Amino acid sequence: MGFSPARVVTLLTDFGLEDPFVGVMHGVVLARAREVRVVDLCHAIEPQRVAEAAFWVERCHAWFPPGTVHVVVVDPGVGSARVVLVVEHEGHLFVGPDNGVLGALAARGRAWEVGTAKLGGPPPSRTFHGRDLFAPLAAELAVGRLAPDDVGHPAPAFAPSPLRAPARTPEGWAGEVVTIDRFGNLITNLRGEHLAGVARARHSGRVLRIVGTYAEAEPGEAVALLGSFDAVEVAVREGDAARSLGGRRGDPVTLLARP
Amino acid sequence: MGFSPARVVTLLTDFGLEDPFVGVMHGVVLARAREVRVVDLCHAIEPQRVAEAAFWVERCHAWFPPGTVHVVVVDPGVGSARVVLVVEHEGHLFVGPDNGVLGALAARGRAWEVGTAKLGGPPPSRTFHGRDLFAPLAAELAVGRLAPDDVGHPAPAFAPSPLRAPARTPEGWAGEVVTIDRFGNLITNLRGEHLAGVARARHSGRVLRIVGTYAEAEPGEAVALLGSFDAVEVAVREGDAARSLGGRRGDPVTLLARP
Amino acid sequence: MGFSPARVVTLLTDFGLEDPFVGVMHGVVLARAREVRVVDLCHAIEPQRVAEAAFWVERCHAWFPPGTVHVVVVDPGVGSARVVLVVEHEGHLFVGPDNGVLGALAARGRAWEVGTAKLGGPPPSRTFHGRDLFAPLAAELAVGRLAPDDVGHPAPAFAPSPLRAPARTPEGWAGEVVTIDRFGNLITNLRGEHLAGVARARHSGRVLRIVGTYAEAEPGEAVALLGSFDAVEVAVREGDAARSLGGRRGDPVTLLARP
Repeated sequence: MGFSPARVVTLLTDFGLEDPFVGVMHGVVLARAREVRVVDLCHAIEPQRVAEAAFWVERCHAWFPPGTVHVVVVDPGVGSARVVLVVEHEGHLFVGPDNGVLGALAARGRAWEVGTAKLGGPPPSRTFHGRDLFAPLAAELAVGRLAPDDVGHPAPAFAPSPLRAPARTPEGWAGEVVTIDRFGNLITNLRGEHLAGVARARHSGRVLRIVGTYAEAEPGEAVALLGSFDAVEVAVREGDAARSLGGRRGDPVTLLARP
Repeated sequence: MGFSPARVVTLLTDFGLEDPFVGVMHGVVLARAREVRVVDLCHAIEPQRVAEAAFWVERCHAWFPPGTVHVVVVDPGVGSARVVLVVEHEGHLFVGPDNGVLGALAARGRAWEVGTAKLGGPPPSRTFHGRDLFAPLAAELAVGRLAPDDVGHPAPAFAPSPLRAPARTPEGWAGEVVTIDRFGNLITNLRGEHLAGVARARHSGRVLRIVGTYAEAEPGEAVALLGSFDAVEVAVREGDAARSLGGRRGDPVTLLARP
Repeated sequence: MGFSPARVVTLLTDFGLEDPFVGVMHGVVLARAREVRVVDLCHAIEPQRVAEAAFWVERCHAWFPPGTVHVVVVDPGVGSARVVLVVEHEGHLFVGPDNGVLGALAARGRAWEVGTAKLGGPPPSRTFHGRDLFAPLAAELAVGRLAPDDVGHPAPAFAPSPLRAPARTPEGWAGEVVTIDRFGNLITNLRGEHLAGVARARHSGRVLRIVGTYAEAEPGEAVALLGSFDAVEVAVREGDAARSLGGRRGDPVTLLARP
């Protein structure tokens, strides 16, 4: 399944919306290709938390049209000599730094190391590659004026994803909290497939029922359930699991096999 | 005035922008109909506060082009058997759960109970109907590929709006705070029409002058005035009424008739 | 370089995203001209801080396509008799109140005092000119249906920018913090040109090294560097300068010439 440009660009960053950094990236794309649709996937990744961005781009990209270019800028190494990657996977392109944020997608698809000479424009600043490098590159790819082979060569290697896979244990499956949503739900790296034969979950020493939907929990009860991105999450009905359970990114969550 | 599709979709939710939930809804619309313009009306509705969403969709929709589809997802009952509604009113369509959020619009327009069989795509998840049900439905309606009659039948009944109407009292009009804006202004369900013959307002035991514009108040003075959405609001000039008056959603606000 | 409409509008306000005020401005533009692309430049300007908005619109506009209309609504005087300006500069148009926010651009370009009679539509409210006046005006200008001369006449005068220029001193250059970004970096009015012959910077009595990029600082070290908008900033590597140095808007920052 090749890449056929759909003139859609998504942006996933840790820039927040307090400053005009994201707005300027929209401007750079439009200045190169006014016909591109630019969508803010999310800009509230915890600063420099590569694993969180990796998680969301993996789980979200398939909801966009094939031919979309996804830009991921969580980039603690900006200004250093780190490589820029373009990845093709399932008919989508991904643009980002080679710091692991695209590692899992690169492993499943194809990856290019990219130079910037073909982009034209002023030389990139040392602090804002989102504007000076990733956005112009995405614009050119999104309209098909440049292809990955025009700007790069196959990457001989790339940084692996910082996301750990759940591990088989005598108890069942050992996973961890990857991100926490607005409602305080603790979203883990455990998937629906890991729930087979599972009776209970455990977080911070607390054993939790597994339910099918929030409505099956009692008000105030902490439970585990399969969320809408095929991720097991710990939730408190009509409450905030992060606050009431003291949940944090990286917390172990265990799925306990039926005895 | 019928519905003539303008290929515009608005989104009003309590999802916040901390997570990619809203971004993914944009993706789903574009994946079905790339030509649709998707506008974020607001995503900061207080979680599950149906009345606040009802207030804003009623006050805001007419500023969009006729033929717009407005999606409202404040949906405490997601995952339960609650009905999905499409409402037509004044040449706009509205899509949301049947929990009262569209109650006032349905009462003034036409309402359909909607099934999802015609939508195609994977079966909806139990926790994210915004992505799996409301966004695809809105995309199809916004380009006119489906009409309400194609996906539903006239609703025999629907949940009423949770917004109370102001009440006539011996003193004048009794209303309440419905929402609080960024500047701390307390926005009520009282309208311009309720100001006829009114001399003063009262909030939390404090009697307030009614002014025409912020500039007529003294710095630091709490006043009542008619805001830009035909809603009486309590404001503190160069201050934050919510903070300095301790104002909250649901607070009574009374308009006192001239004696 | 004249203005050739690109059908792009940017919005820069202090409205925040907690309320549907920005969303409604998008709607007003689309209702007049559905083909316009509306970009949120930023809505988190500190309420009524005209200097911060002036800084960002000056530094950001050139990243958008020529022919863009930039709307700036930081407007403490809304509802008073203050004048509305349209400014043309470098092939872009700017729309905003005459309170200094467009002062520097007007001084370098051309400015018109604008009336609203030609806009049609309902008379503007007294509290939301962003919706009732700036957005409709921007839509008409962005598609070329109206030109500045159609709606205004050359402004005989306009309010000057509240941004001070850095001052030459015996030590070097005296500047100040204009804005603080999400990462806590203190962004000043000092430019790259002011770094010539400079050895060190000073903020709050602390003397700081000047580095080329964050990576050259030690972890936790406070440094000064030239940021991506040609603005000298004070930063703490892997830290938050605003928090750890107690930095605030208006703080003096001095560039110390090599002895």
